[in-house]
Amino acid sequence: MALVVQKYGGASLATPEKMLHVADRIIKMKKKGNDMVVVVSAPGDTTDDLVSFAEKLSENPPEREMDMLLSTGEQQSIALMSMALNHKGCPAISFTGQQVGIITDKSHTQARIKAIEGIGKIKKALKDGKVVVVAGFQGITEEENITTLGRGGSDLTAVALAHALKADVAEFLKDVPGVLTTNPSVCPDASKIDFLSYDEMLELASSGAQVLYNRSVEFAKNYDVVLHVRGTFTETNGTIIKKEDSKMEKIVVSGITYSKNEAKVTLKSVPDRPGVASKIFSTLADAGVNVDIIIQNVSEKGTTDVSFTTIRKDIKKTIKVVEDIVKKTGAAGYSVDEKVGKVSAVGVGMRTHTGIASKMFGALADAKVNINMISTSEIKISCVVAEDDTEKAVKALHAAFGLGKKSGSKK
Amino acid sequence: MALVVQKYGGASLATPEKMLHVADRIIKMKKKGNDMVVVVSAPGDTTDDLVSFAEKLSENPPEREMDMLLSTGEQQSIALMSMALNHKGCPAISFTGQQVGIITDKSHTQARIKAIEGIGKIKKALKDGKVVVVAGFQGITEEENITTLGRGGSDLTAVALAHALKADVAEFLKDVPGVLTTNPSVCPDASKIDFLSYDEMLELASSGAQVLYNRSVEFAKNYDVVLHVRGTFTETNGTIIKKEDSKMEKIVVSGITYSKNEAKVTLKSVPDRPGVASKIFSTLADAGVNVDIIIQNVSEKGTTDVSFTTIRKDIKKTIKVVEDIVKKTGAAGYSVDEKVGKVSAVGVGMRTHTGIASKMFGALADAKVNINMISTSEIKISCVVAEDDTEKAVKALHAAFGLGKKSGSKK
Repeated sequence: MALVVQKYGGASLATPEKMLHVADRIIKMKKKGNDMVVVVSAPGDTTDDLVSFAEKLSENPPEREMDMLLSTGEQQSIALMSMALNHKGCPAISFTGQQVGIITDKSHTQARIKAIEGIGKIKKALKDGKVVVVAGFQGITEEENITTLGRGGSDLTAVALAHALKADVAEFLKDVPGVLTTNPSVCPDASKIDFLSYDEMLELASSGAQVLYNRSVEFAKNYDVVLHVRGTFTETNGTIIKKEDSKMEKIVVSGITYSKNEAKVTLKSVPDRPGVASKIFSTLADAGVNVDIIIQNVSEKGTTDVSFTTIRKDIKKTIKVVEDIVKKTGAAGYSVDEKVGKVSAVGVGMRTHTGIASKMFGALADAKVNINMISTSEIKISCVVAEDDTEKAVKALHAAFGLGKKSGSKK
Repeated sequence: MALVVQKYGGASLATPEKMLHVADRIIKMKKKGNDMVVVVSAPGDTTDDLVSFAEKLSENPPEREMDMLLSTGEQQSIALMSMALNHKGCPAISFTGQQVGIITDKSHTQARIKAIEGIGKIKKALKDGKVVVVAGFQGITEEENITTLGRGGSDLTAVALAHALKADVAEFLKDVPGVLTTNPSVCPDASKIDFLSYDEMLELASSGAQVLYNRSVEFAKNYDVVLHVRGTFTETNGTIIKKEDSKMEKIVVSGITYSKNEAKVTLKSVPDRPGVASKIFSTLADAGVNVDIIIQNVSEKGTTDVSFTTIRKDIKKTIKVVEDIVKKTGAAGYSVDEKVGKVSAVGVGMRTHTGIASKMFGALADAKVNINMISTSEIKISCVVAEDDTEKAVKALHAAFGLGKKSGSKK
């Protein structure tokens, strides 16, 4: 008998039929003897519809009112899910963020959870044999203003509740069976990863595998909350994300991620003075440009080339800032390559295994993929390549590290 | 400078364009120097859509969850209306029923307001120069469960807030310019009534003019809250409903109402024993049959005919009960006329003027309308007529009492 927090996203709650299916899924878990706390997002397109109504009223609506508006989607979900459960003979009760005392700071539209004060209410309902359905994404300030938690907010609600309730696991029900070794549309033999450390999950997410938002994984890491990403339509285990253990280290590379919405900018012949890099990147940061990989070549004749990647859709804004930087730093000029992609290999095993980088570069060379930029962290190696080479690179790496279903190296 | 509570219904909030129009309306009132508290219903069909989603999940959803669900519609409205006002440069803030402390009893889906504890919050926001937008229809129990107030609930919220705030008036913005002397689709010269007493409004409403729900009018009567029913698309005064005064008494008949969804049942030759009427009507009440007009003819030879009217759609249920009553009382039988209508003349002036009834019967006779049943109260005379005669009767009475625009007797 365990205490399980389950989180369901809006897509699995879009229609009455889907809601009833989710209710069955919850009831099955409960019948196995688990206490169930369920966190739900807004059903289907509700949030988008509300945002679009609001945008027709005002380009810049007050954030407090935006939170007041958007929090209604999750409130609808909890009521409907509770009805679906009760309809199937399973006692259930719904609570808003306010009702379970999810206290946040005052940062409307991206509030941070400060405390959960209504745990007693949840425990009492569980003791009464009820499934407790809690609205994700929302909280309340000490002044009783409704707040929302920003992107991935419902995931965060689930992790925070799991921590506060000392739950055994926070489960995230998805339309995929778990976290995969790579995108199956690129590698049809992509396989489910059984276990990941928090750090691996963070690197996978930031490299393009949008399964869980980093905020939630970081929260789980800080408080040791075991996460389980699994399929809504299957009962087999998915991917369990927990503290790193020796078993994980045996697997050198857990997954290959990629993204194709990158752009590369090179500042040419920048005078190599102390503080020049700081100047460049603080100027970019002040302008709100998100920089990913940064490379600075060794200095020649007192000047150096500095390259960085950014999100392609920000490129216009970036170029404006770069033109300004060229003037200020006395660089010779700049070049832009809007057609680049990024492939990354992620795995805690890299820490204890050597030669991963050379294996990666070798595999890319064999596939005739030219490497543009390289960036490494303790558990990740990323290569920037031509956009058109991205899929080829992913396939080469997925095969080289034996991640496919038939390779058998993962199970 | 006055404190004005305005209530807008869902139809006037259905689209962004309509919301922005309502915002203009509110801002105009504020610019005249009024403090504005605005109560809104759910936008457009929101409530119906939510109910229909719920019905697909469960035939009999828990009422607590139904309230949790339906209260989101009004919460969306307050947020959107506040955005619209802010967009037009008018500072505004939204509050849910919970946030202004509208405390109700525990009767989910038809709760009664017990107290309003958050008046200080509203007053502070008004003092800060803000328009305060409050969600209608909803409240909260002492245990912090969300409740709704049932049919006409938003009107009730407006009247209760006006009372608690000691507001000068509670205005109800409608797609009609006010309460009319009768239905303009029957009498094109129907004119706006300038003043009505609470009792007249109650009689008009219960006789078919669904402008305000009786609960709200009764609340206003009990606490002397001045009501003003007016048009959303005009700034001229509508109908003011307040305590009866001598001016009102000068107008003998204020309005003619009618309904065509009536049925008449006659119990024939009921043995005329003490308590027999009580037995008949308590049996009907126990079965949930709503009885309107009751007539008992004088007794002949120890038996009497008892007739009553009820709502036509309840007639099957009524007949079942009546068959049972015939057996129990030893009546000779019963007859049903499903094709009847009712016309009523309402006015406090009847109290001090004589001859109204005879004038009414005379007008109907001149129009060749046969009167089926008659029922009178202090300020209302109702006649049951053949359904096909209903409009003819309304026209005859509207003209006889000089209520048309051109007659000039009202202005």
